[in-house]
Amino acid sequence: MNIDGKPYRTIWPDPKEAGLVYIIDQRYLPYRLVIESLKTVDDVVAAIRDMHIRGAGLIGATAAYGLYLSAVRANRQSVSAFFSDLEEAGNRLLATRPTAVNLRWAVNRCLCAARREDCIDEMIKAVRAEADMISDLDVACCRHIGEWGFGIIEKICREKGGQPVNILTHCNAGWLAFVDYGTATAPIYLSKERGIPVHVYVDETRPLNQGSKLTAFELEQNGVPHTIVADNAGGHLMQHGLVDLVLVGSDRVTAQGDVANKIGTYLKAVAALIHHIPFYVALPTSTIDWTIHDGIKDIPIEVRSEDEIKSITGLNQAGDLDRLLIAHAESPAINYAFDVTPARFITGLITEKGIFQANRESLSQLRERLDEEHRK
Amino acid sequence: MNIDGKPYRTIWPDPKEAGLVYIIDQRYLPYRLVIESLKTVDDVVAAIRDMHIRGAGLIGATAAYGLYLSAVRANRQSVSAFFSDLEEAGNRLLATRPTAVNLRWAVNRCLCAARREDCIDEMIKAVRAEADMISDLDVACCRHIGEWGFGIIEKICREKGGQPVNILTHCNAGWLAFVDYGTATAPIYLSKERGIPVHVYVDETRPLNQGSKLTAFELEQNGVPHTIVADNAGGHLMQHGLVDLVLVGSDRVTAQGDVANKIGTYLKAVAALIHHIPFYVALPTSTIDWTIHDGIKDIPIEVRSEDEIKSITGLNQAGDLDRLLIAHAESPAINYAFDVTPARFITGLITEKGIFQANRESLSQLRERLDEEHRK
Repeated sequence: MNIDGKPYRTIWPDPKEAGLVYIIDQRYLPYRLVIESLKTVDDVVAAIRDMHIRGAGLIGATAAYGLYLSAVRANRQSVSAFFSDLEEAGNRLLATRPTAVNLRWAVNRCLCAARREDCIDEMIKAVRAEADMISDLDVACCRHIGEWGFGIIEKICREKGGQPVNILTHCNAGWLAFVDYGTATAPIYLSKERGIPVHVYVDETRPLNQGSKLTAFELEQNGVPHTIVADNAGGHLMQHGLVDLVLVGSDRVTAQGDVANKIGTYLKAVAALIHHIPFYVALPTSTIDWTIHDGIKDIPIEVRSEDEIKSITGLNQAGDLDRLLIAHAESPAINYAFDVTPARFITGLITEKGIFQANRESLSQLRERLDEEHRK
Repeated sequence: MNIDGKPYRTIWPDPKEAGLVYIIDQRYLPYRLVIESLKTVDDVVAAIRDMHIRGAGLIGATAAYGLYLSAVRANRQSVSAFFSDLEEAGNRLLATRPTAVNLRWAVNRCLCAARREDCIDEMIKAVRAEADMISDLDVACCRHIGEWGFGIIEKICREKGGQPVNILTHCNAGWLAFVDYGTATAPIYLSKERGIPVHVYVDETRPLNQGSKLTAFELEQNGVPHTIVADNAGGHLMQHGLVDLVLVGSDRVTAQGDVANKIGTYLKAVAALIHHIPFYVALPTSTIDWTIHDGIKDIPIEVRSEDEIKSITGLNQAGDLDRLLIAHAESPAINYAFDVTPARFITGLITEKGIFQANRESLSQLRERLDEEHRK
């Protein structure tokens, strides 16, 4: 998508130099566009852990390029020494964000790709090719999600006699969370492109304000009408008929359709249910963790530093990034980063393969189809 | 309640000098204790409008002292000129916060008190006496609310075999929002005093963070165990059995028991209903607006400046109050300050007269009782 009218992806390898990858350091958005060079797995671990980048798809793609960077610099004395370095890098990458299932998926795919080769040079090439593939696949997935989700928005617009469709979104499941297009935003960008009028209520998404910082930024940069609201406003908006559709992303979906997403998603799902407003989750199928069913029991919820709640980063009047204490310093805080929305609150899961109901039957059909495609 | 071990009220007249009232300027809390002198109705209008003070009970008491200050300085050429000044002051005070019903109640009481007298000096005395009475009444109401609410907490504690009772609260319905004790906090302070173990989850309460700034401050200063959470966390906490009771205040309650309170209250009520967690609202009966029934239709919701969402005040590393931009500057925001929780989501209304169900029948019994007491 565009920044200042110029198209970008959120991650891209240097077209000439081996072992060099670029990302947009999102900690400086929306205030400043900072491009960061990544050369080592240390750089990548820091970029994921310290949230220079975030978002399900982009974490996966970045981890894949992290394995590529580690492969370029791994021990070449023997295949086993090389592989041991690669696996260690994989484990370090896996430890950065426990909730992100795409991270595990991407790391495993890259390790498997390496294992299929016999010599180190071919292994490096294979990991790079896999990372490129994961990145391109992410873009293609998001485009397809956009097409499927577009149908939902178009239908609501028709039912409203052509009036703008009001969409509430939480956090950033936009192109900045993926390689391009985004998941929850892809149908929105497509609607805008095709002349279906939309307006997006953007939850600011405390504590890290990915909504008011990133989603607002990318919607504004790409010409989509939108309004930032406090996370607290969603119930009021729904009660007054101001929301036609809730559309969010996900960090992990279970085999029965429970959805882990940014803390606060669940409150919106509960309110949407009470108000009979469709609540859709957009995700690439790689976000589904087929090994677990009960999301409340089986998805570990990352607890992040209380500093993220008690203080905040923003731009001061001199135009510099600064940090303020915004709570009583002597009080403790607890910072659950995600919550789980059980399947029964979800109208549908918008994937690159189509829209599925959030239940075991519908998702096992999806799984069979994925297995079949995999066998081909 | 205590600050640094010393007991305070949130507003008090100078014990010697006429026409001088003090408040705690809450904009500096929790970082600094600033006592502000109020001498004119202009001072009071600014204090209410710019939120040096806030909270249902304290707005009422402050407006009452505002009328007293205007009376002291009003035109003394004739009773009608005096009264015209007083009424103008009343109208200016009423315009400061449209959602606060206590404001209207307090202004009307003071004007009535003045009308009962014949000469200007007696009118001034009467308004002062009424303001003192409103202030003392607020304290007494909160103590009674504490007693009634204590019973609820004690019962839950007994049912939990003496384990700590986890209470979720939103915004600040603490002593800082009243003259002393608070409404939602009064039962908590009483429980603490009487050895019933409690722990409070404090919603930070965006956009103005009255939870993480004020509620956290007053609980910490008065020794109540508590933890600040993002407003987004409530659903997760309830889903995991970490909340035994939701206890909030209110800015206006209708005759059928609909409750206007800080934006975000409604989302917690919806989640509490889904999770079968008791949701109580604590309020003095003066908060009930008997003239309206349907809260969603009839309570005007104040829309405040978008700056409150897009930037935030806090303490910088030099220890000074500072302001940061925390959103994309080019994006619009809308700042609904309150929402309405319909009666069906409310387990009970804890008033100084006892606990009432949130419905027309129960509240009309309360009204009859209030009318009877008024006639005595």
